[in-house]
Amino acid sequence: MSQTDKSIFEEFESEVRSYCRNFPSIFTKAKGYKMWDEAGQEYIDFFSGAGALNYGHNDPVMKSKLVEYISNDGITHSLDMATSAKAEFISKFNDVILKPRKLDYKIMFPGPTGTNTVESALKLARKVTGRTDVISFTNGFHGMTIGSLSVTGNAAKRKGAGIPLHHSVTMPYDNFVDNNSSLDYLESFLEGGGSGVDIPAAMILETVQGEGGINAASFDWLKKIEQICKRWGILLIIDDVQAGVGRTGTFFSFEPAGITPDIVCMSKSLSGFGLPFAITLFHPELDIWSPGEHNGTFRGNNHAFVTATAALSYWEDKEFEKSIQNKSKMIHDFLVKLNQDTPELNGEVCGRGFMTGIVSEVDGLASKITAEAFERGLIMETSGPNDEVFKLFPPITIDEDGLKKGFNIIEESVKSILKEPVTN
Amino acid sequence: MSQTDKSIFEEFESEVRSYCRNFPSIFTKAKGYKMWDEAGQEYIDFFSGAGALNYGHNDPVMKSKLVEYISNDGITHSLDMATSAKAEFISKFNDVILKPRKLDYKIMFPGPTGTNTVESALKLARKVTGRTDVISFTNGFHGMTIGSLSVTGNAAKRKGAGIPLHHSVTMPYDNFVDNNSSLDYLESFLEGGGSGVDIPAAMILETVQGEGGINAASFDWLKKIEQICKRWGILLIIDDVQAGVGRTGTFFSFEPAGITPDIVCMSKSLSGFGLPFAITLFHPELDIWSPGEHNGTFRGNNHAFVTATAALSYWEDKEFEKSIQNKSKMIHDFLVKLNQDTPELNGEVCGRGFMTGIVSEVDGLASKITAEAFERGLIMETSGPNDEVFKLFPPITIDEDGLKKGFNIIEESVKSILKEPVTN
Amino acid sequence: MSQTDKSIFEEFESEVRSYCRNFPSIFTKAKGYKMWDEAGQEYIDFFSGAGALNYGHNDPVMKSKLVEYISNDGITHSLDMATSAKAEFISKFNDVILKPRKLDYKIMFPGPTGTNTVESALKLARKVTGRTDVISFTNGFHGMTIGSLSVTGNAAKRKGAGIPLHHSVTMPYDNFVDNNSSLDYLESFLEGGGSGVDIPAAMILETVQGEGGINAASFDWLKKIEQICKRWGILLIIDDVQAGVGRTGTFFSFEPAGITPDIVCMSKSLSGFGLPFAITLFHPELDIWSPGEHNGTFRGNNHAFVTATAALSYWEDKEFEKSIQNKSKMIHDFLVKLNQDTPELNGEVCGRGFMTGIVSEVDGLASKITAEAFERGLIMETSGPNDEVFKLFPPITIDEDGLKKGFNIIEESVKSILKEPVTN
Amino acid sequence: MSQTDKSIFEEFESEVRSYCRNFPSIFTKAKGYKMWDEAGQEYIDFFSGAGALNYGHNDPVMKSKLVEYISNDGITHSLDMATSAKAEFISKFNDVILKPRKLDYKIMFPGPTGTNTVESALKLARKVTGRTDVISFTNGFHGMTIGSLSVTGNAAKRKGAGIPLHHSVTMPYDNFVDNNSSLDYLESFLEGGGSGVDIPAAMILETVQGEGGINAASFDWLKKIEQICKRWGILLIIDDVQAGVGRTGTFFSFEPAGITPDIVCMSKSLSGFGLPFAITLFHPELDIWSPGEHNGTFRGNNHAFVTATAALSYWEDKEFEKSIQNKSKMIHDFLVKLNQDTPELNGEVCGRGFMTGIVSEVDGLASKITAEAFERGLIMETSGPNDEVFKLFPPITIDEDGLKKGFNIIEESVKSILKEPVTN
Repeated sequence: MSQTDKSIFEEFESEVRSYCRNFPSIFTKAKGYKMWDEAGQEYIDFFSGAGALNYGHNDPVMKSKLVEYISNDGITHSLDMATSAKAEFISKFNDVILKPRKLDYKIMFPGPTGTNTVESALKLARKVTGRTDVISFTNGFHGMTIGSLSVTGNAAKRKGAGIPLHHSVTMPYDNFVDNNSSLDYLESFLEGGGSGVDIPAAMILETVQGEGGINAASFDWLKKIEQICKRWGILLIIDDVQAGVGRTGTFFSFEPAGITPDIVCMSKSLSGFGLPFAITLFHPELDIWSPGEHNGTFRGNNHAFVTATAALSYWEDKEFEKSIQNKSKMIHDFLVKLNQDTPELNGEVCGRGFMTGIVSEVDGLASKITAEAFERGLIMETSGPNDEVFKLFPPITIDEDGLKKGFNIIEESVKSILKEPVTN
Repeated sequence: MSQTDKSIFEEFESEVRSYCRNFPSIFTKAKGYKMWDEAGQEYIDFFSGAGALNYGHNDPVMKSKLVEYISNDGITHSLDMATSAKAEFISKFNDVILKPRKLDYKIMFPGPTGTNTVESALKLARKVTGRTDVISFTNGFHGMTIGSLSVTGNAAKRKGAGIPLHHSVTMPYDNFVDNNSSLDYLESFLEGGGSGVDIPAAMILETVQGEGGINAASFDWLKKIEQICKRWGILLIIDDVQAGVGRTGTFFSFEPAGITPDIVCMSKSLSGFGLPFAITLFHPELDIWSPGEHNGTFRGNNHAFVTATAALSYWEDKEFEKSIQNKSKMIHDFLVKLNQDTPELNGEVCGRGFMTGIVSEVDGLASKITAEAFERGLIMETSGPNDEVFKLFPPITIDEDGLKKGFNIIEESVKSILKEPVTN
Repeated sequence: MSQTDKSIFEEFESEVRSYCRNFPSIFTKAKGYKMWDEAGQEYIDFFSGAGALNYGHNDPVMKSKLVEYISNDGITHSLDMATSAKAEFISKFNDVILKPRKLDYKIMFPGPTGTNTVESALKLARKVTGRTDVISFTNGFHGMTIGSLSVTGNAAKRKGAGIPLHHSVTMPYDNFVDNNSSLDYLESFLEGGGSGVDIPAAMILETVQGEGGINAASFDWLKKIEQICKRWGILLIIDDVQAGVGRTGTFFSFEPAGITPDIVCMSKSLSGFGLPFAITLFHPELDIWSPGEHNGTFRGNNHAFVTATAALSYWEDKEFEKSIQNKSKMIHDFLVKLNQDTPELNGEVCGRGFMTGIVSEVDGLASKITAEAFERGLIMETSGPNDEVFKLFPPITIDEDGLKKGFNIIEESVKSILKEPVTN
Repeated sequence: MSQTDKSIFEEFESEVRSYCRNFPSIFTKAKGYKMWDEAGQEYIDFFSGAGALNYGHNDPVMKSKLVEYISNDGITHSLDMATSAKAEFISKFNDVILKPRKLDYKIMFPGPTGTNTVESALKLARKVTGRTDVISFTNGFHGMTIGSLSVTGNAAKRKGAGIPLHHSVTMPYDNFVDNNSSLDYLESFLEGGGSGVDIPAAMILETVQGEGGINAASFDWLKKIEQICKRWGILLIIDDVQAGVGRTGTFFSFEPAGITPDIVCMSKSLSGFGLPFAITLFHPELDIWSPGEHNGTFRGNNHAFVTATAALSYWEDKEFEKSIQNKSKMIHDFLVKLNQDTPELNGEVCGRGFMTGIVSEVDGLASKITAEAFERGLIMETSGPNDEVFKLFPPITIDEDGLKKGFNIIEESVKSILKEPVTN
């Protein structure tokens, strides 16, 4: 392949492009936890497509299934017609994921993106309850279309809507305020006839906030939220788009908290291969949709059915979850040690599973560290309203060697940056 | 492949599924204008994935490029990082489509679905103008997320939102009211300081309404709309998601009207292969996005870049447009004759190009005809607020033989249905 | 009384003040159709408090009843407690107004202003129908609080809200567009499942638009509006705040059109004396209010009950309506002749009853005429989105001599202004 | 006067009437703190027109000025034209109220009701800041038109709107949650870029919540609110409609807290005599209104100017405030003792000044006590979202004898009710 003229992006692609500014290479190939650019430079990927590549790049089993499917002229695009590929996905998702976890959910295919599953969840909750408002939480992120943006906390992203965003009330996420009063506060609002807050259709939340700063809610807080929802007849929507599919150590992020959401939103890593794919899960008694009441052109992406079905095989092996959890501990230990050894970070380890990072109170430091890491061949991202977190998002299939390589680069990057005088 | 138990969909998939109810087969393979189900039954496809498969199924050139790309571990998922596959698409889209048409547009990758390009267009129009309202038109359809739904006319779909939809004003589409006053009316609203209607950020419309009943606006009406937009400083957004990519005989549906929209929304057939993919085009001076102000996990679907680039080759050959237009004439002539020969239809031919049909005033008739056609091996759909249109959406790459086969089935279906007493 | 220093208003009163800029005198006394300022200058009042002083100033019978009531320590302020004064008003309103007109309405006291009766009407219509949207009409004016402003057409006034105004759809008022298609258009919107317009809770309109340019709807149009409302189960609200209480020649402005609104809003001249007072009338079966569901501190203004009861005596005499109508004819004839004799006005006579004027296409001319008239001792106002109308609003109790004095001043003012070169 | 048939109200007045259900007499006369019904029964008034009759009924000085004004044919209704009566009010309000308190405010006459001054304040705050949202507080009450209702907390009243209410965020009022974290919480929302809460145009609050349960904010909390507003450039609106004009012991309720609001809303007792009247005060630099941008038919109620001017004379005597404060102490002591002596109330004394009561945790008890008191000749009301407070609102001009008579009836009523077994 010949070298690409970089100016093509500057000249013809919209200014809205963003990651390409932080990672200014032209990528061509990828395999597992590695990526290569046109110049042949190799990168370790601790970013995983913002959580869409939990199984790494181009997993060989999925790849071979996909190539075989395409070669045989398998149906590619089917809207919501029945196809064999779809039947296989549904069947295996039920057998490997839902049944063993005793989860009784209907599956909806709402269109292939995270924001689409969130929009469908909000519509359904409003339809089922006949109510309009939805409680969301500080620093929650749920997507960029107007419905999802309405329940997203980030001020800059909300402003981008260009119109006021309504029918949502923001409540404090776990640990948003220092004292542990956030749930008292929430209940006071629901109880009072004078709070200006209607009983909402639903609450929507991430168990670990990805874009909002890698904040992990405690299991106790999550359980209490579930209880409050039950008490008031409010539907609990878990947006597991980023935290799901093994990212926190279990298939669904909410499993260790012992809660059972009414509605679950999944996308990103669900196809396993990085292909656009999303599902919305909900209790059968909520399934009061009229045919076609929510639809979308690409809700039948059969290539994704094929790779998603193949990806589910990982979860047939009970050792798989353990391996993620073991590696999670390595990551945690690494971060704790790095943080202890580096008081200049003024940091705190945050998150859980493969969804972790260090939040630093030093302005601009996290961005410098990720930029330095890129120079040294590691791709990683910042998070939080002020980019105050540098986050580690390796593929959950990475081996220990890959992890250690990444850790080394992070350690070196931190040291290198802290040697320079911090100016802002 | 073994036979699939059909109950798997009924048991596990949400009631929201819809096309599978009209076309109750389990599909496995497809090629060109043909599809096959598990039982080996062959179907002629006059539906084309609701306009997402304009080049037919599994085009051999695109397929071979895609398999090659996957086999080489080409990057699959890249968010908005730069990749070689993306660069090739941008470059070829510019060379083959924009330049020859003297269109100066920046390209935005907003997420891979039609509703996503519409949401991005609305955001941008509001940002550029600092205004909130958008004028849409009766029977317009623009998508199912809250932003797009706000500019969609269909009452049932709007109701599905579960919340009031604001910041849009509906104006009459060409021929919505009998007299030709719709534009006078629109101008009166804009002129009057007392109309309750603010000068809007944008007007959004389809040149041929796909879901709303295959209504084709006259070129004269479109030109006047463009003039009104210019006069009032309103941005003109053409939603070419369904009517674009050759469906009406030219790459963009608005070309023969001689207008140049400020913003163009494209998706559906853009990838050529049925893969999720969308772009938003706009004049460079409108490109005031901040980096990441609109984003999405799957805005870098490299498989789609590869097939979309391959699909553009069709347009390098100037004969391609002519062939679509010649076949369009065949379709039109067939429909006119069918309509003349069958006064019981109480019908009228509607649409243009490969986006046509017959609107019948007989309640329920169009649905019966499409059901009968399916029994006879032809897949086609109804359209319009009351399903009053049966529409013909063959692939634009179909050969004359395929067209004739389809025509025959339609003719037979119409005859067969009209023999039965029409009860509703 | 000593002379007032005019600077007190400039120094201490808000810039929002407006009429005092057009009529820059300090008024002290008033009687019938005459007003006097501190300097003793006499003015003829063809303005009538924007329709709040239909019986002229300080009517001697009302005045004597009021002074007697106050002198006896009659209850002044009673919220919605029962008082003798209120009972007398209710009883007489029923006997003199409702019964003879065969109108079966419950009476609500919503707070003492026009905007308050409109807000209560909108609330009730939404409660009764369970719907949210309300259709209003181009150039309609219904008040300045957010609910009323949402159904008001004037762009500048709407902008003053500082927030987007929702749940209303503006339709063309009679003669807003040149052809007579406004009702076809309205029905098309209601019929179509694809119009983006929900079936509304209500339509609200004035039979003659006061602020919007003295546009009088034809009786035929009003009847058809009533029929459309009936057909679709939409409540018809007539805002008779300005056109009611005899202003158009009958007590209710809608009487000659032969329609019976579901809800009627009244205020302005209802107290007879210029005191704050409003009522909302509606069919008994609509009276599903919960106690206190709409309330207000001043809904029991007993001084107004006393004067309003006295004012109703006018209507016991059947000659009263005739006298208004006879004088209306004088006004109309005067305007027609003035308009014919003065082609430079480029004008058209508009309105009906005592709610008339001339709309002039010459920019700024109407304002010049009213300013000139003030110099010559006549108080009159402009109307319309661009102040293009000079309007005649004398008290309906004025005698012929008073009318003629006013006519003379108008004639002289027009002549005087047209002698000057019109510059703008 | 003959006896009124009570059925006239049931037959002809809307079901929305409410106080007449609790106080089922037909009132005719009133003087000071006494009212009489048609049967000649005398009542002591501890209700004061819900705060609109702070000076008692038919104050003799105001009455004589008013009768004199009317007798002389003084202008009654003047919109916002200049009148002598208005000039005198402005001048005296400035001299007696503003200047001595070193308050530099422009005066706006927004229409004669509480909700109208609130609507004007919200409009102005949005215009000045260019922002849309307003922070209000739990259990706040600001009026019944849509703008004011949007910042009102009461769920039942909000529901009455029939439409969703937007552009407001409810924050916890002082002591709404048990711990003292409400201000931390508020600041966290403003600080965080991820809270979903925009920086608002204004905060609006009552220093003592009248309808919401006689909750008095601490001076410390009020000061901190003012500081937060200053820090973030948020306008502070004090709604002094009910708590103002001496009700809490000073002319403005906020004086002892040492704060200076940007905007102050006044109505209810402002006219002194119970006549509809309201003003909006704001710092001169906020006075960016265009002429007529907010208006209203009854913003020039000259009768109210006359009585309001007379009422201001009370405040020329510095002893007046002291006398209110001395009597306030009597009320407070009475309530504290009553509460201590009556543990069955399960109560707590609330409020301050002449705006006090006892909140009882016994369901329905407060309503029983006020009903019993009415039987015994005392008019008083309940308050709070569940009517859990019985409140004392005597005129601030009441003498000690009047107070004691009221206290006795309250004491007896409480005892009498508590003797009965409490059933609910």
